[in-house]
This record gives sequence, C-alpha cells and structure tokens, in this order.
Amino acid sequence: MTETTPDQAAARLYDFIRLIRPAHRRLARSVAAHLDGTGLSLGGRAVLELLAETGPLSVAGAARLLFLARQQVQLVMDSLEQQGYVEKRPNPAHRRSPLFALTDQGRRAFAELHTRELARLADIADRLEGADLSAALRVMTALVEGFGAYEDDPDAPRPLA
Amino acid sequence: MTETTPDQAAARLYDFIRLIRPAHRRLARSVAAHLDGTGLSLGGRAVLELLAETGPLSVAGAARLLFLARQQVQLVMDSLEQQGYVEKRPNPAHRRSPLFALTDQGRRAFAELHTRELARLADIADRLEGADLSAALRVMTALVEGFGAYEDDPDAPRPLA
Repeated sequence: MTETTPDQAAARLYDFIRLIRPAHRRLARSVAAHLDGTGLSLGGRAVLELLAETGPLSVAGAARLLFLARQQVQLVMDSLEQQGYVEKRPNPAHRRSPLFALTDQGRRAFAELHTRELARLADIADRLEGADLSAALRVMTALVEGFGAYEDDPDAPRPLA
Repeated sequence: MTETTPDQAAARLYDFIRLIRPAHRRLARSVAAHLDGTGLSLGGRAVLELLAETGPLSVAGAARLLFLARQQVQLVMDSLEQQGYVEKRPNPAHRRSPLFALTDQGRRAFAELHTRELARLADIADRLEGADLSAALRVMTALVEGFGAYEDDPDAPRPLA
C-alpha cells in the first residue's frame, strides 16, 4: 500500500478528470465512424441503446434517462420512427404521450453496431488488467455520484465540448 | 488475480465509457459554479489553466493544445485580455500572431479558483483508494491513446453533450 496524502489524492483525481474531455471527444468520433451507412446520428444510437435496455419509453422518459432536452429527443425519435427503427405503442399512463419501442430492425441495427464497437474496445481492454478496469469503474462511479448535485436541468448550458 | 475473458473486459471497459458523458456534464456544471463572480467562462478558465502550465502561447497554439477551434479560442482570448487576465507579448516566430501571457491578476485568479476546485475534489478522493486512482488513470490514458486516431480536426462536429 502506498501512502497518499489528501492533497496528492485530489491532484491525482484531477489528472484523471482532465482526460475526460479528450476521451469524450475521441470516443464520440469513434462511435460516429461506426454509424456510417446506418443513417443513424449519435443521438439516434443513444436512444436505440436505451430502448434496448429499458424497453418502451415515452420521449419524456427517454430524455430524463439520457440527461438530454425533451425537444432534442423528440426530433431524434421522430427520425428513428421514419427510418423504421422504432414504432409507437399506446401509453396506458398518458394517452397523449405514446411509448416508443424498438422494431426488429432497430434491435438488429443496434446489436450489429454494438458488436463492432465492442470489437474495437477489446483491442484496448486486452492491454489492461482486469483489476484496473474494476478500479477505474469505482473511481468514475464515485465521481459521477459525488457530483450528482450538479445534475439537474437537461436544458442548461452545455459543457465545453 | 481474477480471470477475465476478452469479452468481459471489453464489456467492463464499455461500462466505464458510458459514465464518461454524465461525468463530463456534471464536472462542467461544478467548474461553472466555481466561476460565479469571476467573469470567466468555462473556455476562459481552460485557457488560463493552459497558460499557467505552458507559459505564453499564440491563439493557434492554445487552440491546438485544447483541441478547440482557433476562432473559438480567439474570442475567449480577446475577452480575457479585456478583463485583464492575459496580455499580449511579441511573438519572435510570427510577427502577426502575438503571444498571450497570464498577468499577475490572471495567475492569481486561476490559483484561487483551482484551490477551491481541488478542495471540492478532496472530499471525493478521500473516499477512494490511492491504488484505485492510479489504476483509473492508467485506464483513461489507454482509452485516450487507443482512440487517438480519431482526434484530428477541432472544427469537426461536437459529440453529443
């Protein structure tokens, strides 16, 4: 065990944090590159992934879970519906706010995309220790939870990209 | 040592990656909250930090190091100069592209800001193992380097915020 002073620990956490913006940008580029030929946007891909995990959602529900503005998700959902990736279902809780569910085409499209994304990640994961991955997940989770008080209004100004 | 299959490792790395967007948003909100009363924007703060580390830079040099568009950095730098946080210096390499250096006011403002930011981080770092922080930094570095091929044009479309 190495001894770390509180100041050193905060400084090391800050070094980690400084890599978040470049990581975010580079990963978004990579995800976007995999979208070529699918007709999907980054937002569209994010909505397909969410629906694959949670099942049918209203636009408001999807927006809340993605921390995005409702209007933004509405546009994405309309486009996914036109492309045949999602379809409307009646919403028992809210007659005027339908649920959206993946179609078979949408489920297949996301699965194929995600398989290619994971193959790309496997190259990087291969070079890392399993224990390091678990530790990294603990640190990132602590960070997201520790700064949870700042997550409120999805329509608030965006961070510096 | 736990055994991890390549598929499990990629999936665990993906779990980590999914937290990058929320972490990015929450941290940007927190940094922005510390800016209240300083007249600085998130971009202005990022430029002050860079100049504190590297010394005087041209707008083009700062833009390259921040992975931001030159025009965007020009606006930020002009505003910092008006506020007295930076000042022009002759550029021996480029007569028409001056260097910008921190003024004493700029150096003090960033130091005070960053002390408050690190105090906020210390609360979270306290609850983490030093070894976990080091591991997290290794994983994030591998990710940023592994996806380096996608980092090219700072004027390219922004990731989903």
